[in-house]
Amino acid sequence: MLSVAERKLVEVCFTPGQYQLYKQHFDIVVVVDVLRATSAITTALHCGVKEIIPVSSVEEARAYKAQGYLAGAEREGEVVEGFDFGNSPYAYMDPAMQGKTVVLTTTNGTKAIEIASDRETVVIGCLNNLDFLCQWLCEQHKNTLILASGWKDKFNLEDTICAGAIADCLLEDRRFRANEDSTVAAKFIYRSAREHLWSFLRASSHRRRLIKLNIQRDVKYCLTLNTVPCIPILRNGSLVKLDYTPVETVVTHTQTDNGME
Amino acid sequence: MLSVAERKLVEVCFTPGQYQLYKQHFDIVVVVDVLRATSAITTALHCGVKEIIPVSSVEEARAYKAQGYLAGAEREGEVVEGFDFGNSPYAYMDPAMQGKTVVLTTTNGTKAIEIASDRETVVIGCLNNLDFLCQWLCEQHKNTLILASGWKDKFNLEDTICAGAIADCLLEDRRFRANEDSTVAAKFIYRSAREHLWSFLRASSHRRRLIKLNIQRDVKYCLTLNTVPCIPILRNGSLVKLDYTPVETVVTHTQTDNGME
Repeated sequence: MLSVAERKLVEVCFTPGQYQLYKQHFDIVVVVDVLRATSAITTALHCGVKEIIPVSSVEEARAYKAQGYLAGAEREGEVVEGFDFGNSPYAYMDPAMQGKTVVLTTTNGTKAIEIASDRETVVIGCLNNLDFLCQWLCEQHKNTLILASGWKDKFNLEDTICAGAIADCLLEDRRFRANEDSTVAAKFIYRSAREHLWSFLRASSHRRRLIKLNIQRDVKYCLTLNTVPCIPILRNGSLVKLDYTPVETVVTHTQTDNGME
Repeated sequence: MLSVAERKLVEVCFTPGQYQLYKQHFDIVVVVDVLRATSAITTALHCGVKEIIPVSSVEEARAYKAQGYLAGAEREGEVVEGFDFGNSPYAYMDPAMQGKTVVLTTTNGTKAIEIASDRETVVIGCLNNLDFLCQWLCEQHKNTLILASGWKDKFNLEDTICAGAIADCLLEDRRFRANEDSTVAAKFIYRSAREHLWSFLRASSHRRRLIKLNIQRDVKYCLTLNTVPCIPILRNGSLVKLDYTPVETVVTHTQTDNGME
């Protein structure tokens, strides 16, 4: 077994606004925005979208659109006027998108990706690619920071649960360690919530926000574990599908409640 | 029963750095720094210290000291060189301090008090004054924000647990409501930790930091509930003891494990 000093760090940062406090010492940043940006991005690349260019502002997305790019934009949970799609994962299953470059801006997720881009490696995490991603992260064995996108720089439950699930998995591999209380709390919240994600998140502010928008189908999709074996990775400002085949598939996280109830 | 719209808000903010995002709409801010600033301040006023002037910098504390004030300073958990005391609650039980004005600067707590001072009412919370404070807050029935001091603007467990205990109590009084996920998470963590605070906090980064400093006695004191019926309140830049006698004493939070094990 590795000594404590030989173990790599895995930590959770709750919001993009706190990233500067946490980012030191990390080689890999995993950006998480479960409802719905990182679930949509992972789905898109899995379904054949060639690359996704994340941009921070609606203006940038508009400029790309004017140049003929497929461009999506979401603010406050809704598709921005003038755009055909936002961050619904279902939008990216459209066969017409296969092989295409897509530009995307969202309220929280694409901003988190942008601020994380100062690190060596940025990958995308969600509940849909959970075990696949965890297996890759374990194999890399590098200092790993999981950055929850939150809601407008505030803490949110669904990203914390996903971040806690990833941290929990890496910590079970005894070659990782955690120092931060945020990581302890995220892991604890995940372990408490995992058997009943749907009811646990009933109290979540963002889920209430999305219920108003009548997108229950999206929420159910995003809260379902291990449906998408794909890891988006940031390369030269674009998210592309990482070429990765696990030596063997290990199922770590299972689910008894994915919103079917 | 009050309608949802008539209920007052109670929310938890995890760190001073996030205060600007949360502070709108609140009449009362409760500043929490369990290990050890707010526990020490509450103890001091209960033991007869006349007032405590919280200052942000060691330089300010030094300037007061040069004018003949009793002044304490703590950084990184230790008493700053040139000062006789820091934020150990036991320091403030000294009979020589009775009736005196004390100036104090600490790593996290006094900074949190300063940034909260833009609100109408700032009071001090800790585990030592938990039920007494909760009873007063319920009687006020105002929008209440609980500001955890954290550790250098990062999330910490012990302040979150205390903040969760306060939020839990106010939410049980059905005249309050919460919207933020941070409040849901703090309440959840408190409920999970309450029966075994000491072992729960074993994983806490700050407790590990304090163990190195050999101040187990302080930690045990600070993690003990309801020992100090006193609420410090900020008036004209000084913390003084609030003149408050509950109509009846209600014990809400009980403890089976206070670090005696």
